Amino acid sequence: MDASATIERAVARSYNTNFMERITATYYIETPFSPEAAAAVLAGEQSSGTFVAVPGETAELKQRFAARVESVEHLETVKQPAIPSPAQGSGVYTRALVKVSWSIENFGYNLPVLVSTLQGNLYEIRQFTGLKLLDIDIPASYADHYAGPAFGIEGCRELTQVYERPLIGTIIKPSIGLTPQQTADLVASLAEAGIDFVKDDELQAAAANSPFEARVDAVMDVVNRHADRTGKKVMYAFNISGEIDEMLRRYEKVVTSGGTCAMVSLNSVGLAGTKKICDQRALAIHGHRNGWGMLTRHPLLGIEFMAYQKLWRLAGVDQIHVNGIQNKFWESDDSVVQSIKACLTPLLGGYSVLPVVSSGQWGGQAPETYRRTQTTDLLYMAGGGILAHPMGPKAGVLALQQAWQAAVDGLSVPEAAHQYPEFAKSVEKFGGQ
Amino acid sequence: MDASATIERAVARSYNTNFMERITATYYIETPFSPEAAAAVLAGEQSSGTFVAVPGETAELKQRFAARVESVEHLETVKQPAIPSPAQGSGVYTRALVKVSWSIENFGYNLPVLVSTLQGNLYEIRQFTGLKLLDIDIPASYADHYAGPAFGIEGCRELTQVYERPLIGTIIKPSIGLTPQQTADLVASLAEAGIDFVKDDELQAAAANSPFEARVDAVMDVVNRHADRTGKKVMYAFNISGEIDEMLRRYEKVVTSGGTCAMVSLNSVGLAGTKKICDQRALAIHGHRNGWGMLTRHPLLGIEFMAYQKLWRLAGVDQIHVNGIQNKFWESDDSVVQSIKACLTPLLGGYSVLPVVSSGQWGGQAPETYRRTQTTDLLYMAGGGILAHPMGPKAGVLALQQAWQAAVDGLSVPEAAHQYPEFAKSVEKFGGQ
Repeated sequence: MDASATIERAVARSYNTNFMERITATYYIETPFSPEAAAAVLAGEQSSGTFVAVPGETAELKQRFAARVESVEHLETVKQPAIPSPAQGSGVYTRALVKVSWSIENFGYNLPVLVSTLQGNLYEIRQFTGLKLLDIDIPASYADHYAGPAFGIEGCRELTQVYERPLIGTIIKPSIGLTPQQTADLVASLAEAGIDFVKDDELQAAAANSPFEARVDAVMDVVNRHADRTGKKVMYAFNISGEIDEMLRRYEKVVTSGGTCAMVSLNSVGLAGTKKICDQRALAIHGHRNGWGMLTRHPLLGIEFMAYQKLWRLAGVDQIHVNGIQNKFWESDDSVVQSIKACLTPLLGGYSVLPVVSSGQWGGQAPETYRRTQTTDLLYMAGGGILAHPMGPKAGVLALQQAWQAAVDGLSVPEAAHQYPEFAKSVEKFGGQ
Repeated sequence: MDASATIERAVARSYNTNFMERITATYYIETPFSPEAAAAVLAGEQSSGTFVAVPGETAELKQRFAARVESVEHLETVKQPAIPSPAQGSGVYTRALVKVSWSIENFGYNLPVLVSTLQGNLYEIRQFTGLKLLDIDIPASYADHYAGPAFGIEGCRELTQVYERPLIGTIIKPSIGLTPQQTADLVASLAEAGIDFVKDDELQAAAANSPFEARVDAVMDVVNRHADRTGKKVMYAFNISGEIDEMLRRYEKVVTSGGTCAMVSLNSVGLAGTKKICDQRALAIHGHRNGWGMLTRHPLLGIEFMAYQKLWRLAGVDQIHVNGIQNKFWESDDSVVQSIKACLTPLLGGYSVLPVVSSGQWGGQAPETYRRTQTTDLLYMAGGGILAHPMGPKAGVLALQQAWQAAVDGLSVPEAAHQYPEFAKSVEKFGGQ
């Protein structure tokens, strides 16, 4: 066999490899038509679009770039559409699980265009009266292109020197209104109490009485002095969310001040901006998912957390919010547990991300959280549970550590309260909530 | 009165001015509780958050930063929640219009944090079984901070030299699969036919067989040669959606190649990334809203276009999609008309943005579009209506221009068909759809 034939075969092989690497999305759909027909519309709309015959367009090219319906699994039928819709079709609405795949040759390694492909115009297709993206299978070659979280779970543990238990954290409250000095004073109390992590509220970036730089100076002065004295550096997530240049300036300010973490409101900043920040790789990125309710709260519209967290892990987010057991929001415990498990499932063998448990947490939820997830790889955030503890913030932090020790030891809340006096006080104060 | 008293008064006055400049959001809500109580939860969650007494926090500070419920207007009551929810409260769900305001001192001029404030955790509040952001009143001082669209309607008209009628545009189809040369050949036919505007599909950024730079080279060669010959430069919206650095590189490539427009998928790229691109101010930015269905399709979840388009106009988008009359998607004509009117309503006296009418348009919708909006300040996009015209693309473009002349002259579709032979052929071919 001569050289040119060898090369030809190698090219053909590489072509076929690329050709065969596909990304598959799973949707939960509802339609008044046949799910197979509706799925075909989706695949057409999200690849070839309106067909216009073009000279030179071969069947091979069409096959190469067309989205493919891989499977359609019929589920329940209902009489009322999930999303209020004008009458059309049969008047009976069939729900189904649909898998659709695209060759990665369509978009390559471009997360925004991937999102436009998997979550673009398809929500507008009238053949659907409900459509939710449940999951995405990311192909292996993405691991070569995306560096992923610079820190992840292990990195966040190293930065905080917390091992074999959840990181215990809290949020500066009131969300907005404190001066830099008041914020720093609060951080000083919390550091003294033994906290691992503190964050700005997502509403606080630079308020009139709390300029960003002044807040970093005041807070990092406290954090650095505490670290010098005790060897323990509290991780403070400064909310740098904003425009690109401003975020980069603020990121740099945190780095030069000795900080270890910056927070980004993922949905508000968006995928391109967040990726740019993650790419700096000098700070752990705390991914706040505010706005998430809009994207997921309806069971048949939007995106599930399983798919959502994969996109942000590829972008490089190190910590991501998952709500908490018995939270104050709408989300069910089952959904929270699924979200924690989603974060802890390796993506392409890695892309470790630390689940951030928050919303109405005070330690009483630790046993149930552990029972259902069997993990301590969490950032466990409590607000009032720490600062409003009857014996003071130090006892508040201790009570949370006790709650988690009890959880790992298999104790119930009453058993833990019996064993630990500080946790017992938490139960007295917060247990009736 | 001495100088220091004067200064003191001036400071007090300026303080009060800032203090009083507020941003007001209007929400359509549904709750099983009293709408007043639910609105108060929203205002608390989105400003002070969990209250923890802090030394030095005065009532004045709290008043300064607290969100305020401005009004609650009760609407209908229903027996079933809009978003499926566990039973709670009264079992009767009251809908209401709620206005909430924030001092701009909370976030200043920071669009992502504004979004986190107006559209953040509030969607997760369990007191709501439905919540949609309808509108935002942007305070006057934003005009000093945001330059807005660099081109807007007038600028896009100047770039294309199209006046007193809509810009006529089309989308490269198939969405994905054509090579740069095939794309350029198609553009050549379209330019020859007299088209004003052509765009990449949102699924096409850089496919395996259509590298971005090669596509720009091939297309701009055609566009520039056509411009040299005829004086008319077709506006081609290259889809630069991607990561920040990649978008900036591709933007620069379009600029240096003599292009006039770049397209960004707004929701996929996000607010920070899109603002960074708009800030370059050398190209008109075509704002594609794919993913929009997820954000608005449910009547009681997400955001209405009135609020949405204001954010993108502040960011500097020059053209934004509004769907079209009798479109192929789910959206009603009423909603499309409202969206066009929203774009054409000055924001703070300016921020001109060109509404992009598309989806199933072929010219037959022109009379109704004009009757209901009374404007020709549109980018009117047709796909098959041009390329699949029985007399060829030139007749297809002409038919669209005829349709709009007829619309402005008050003709009906049959009257227009009677007058214009090319449009008559469109009616024959597409009118039965």
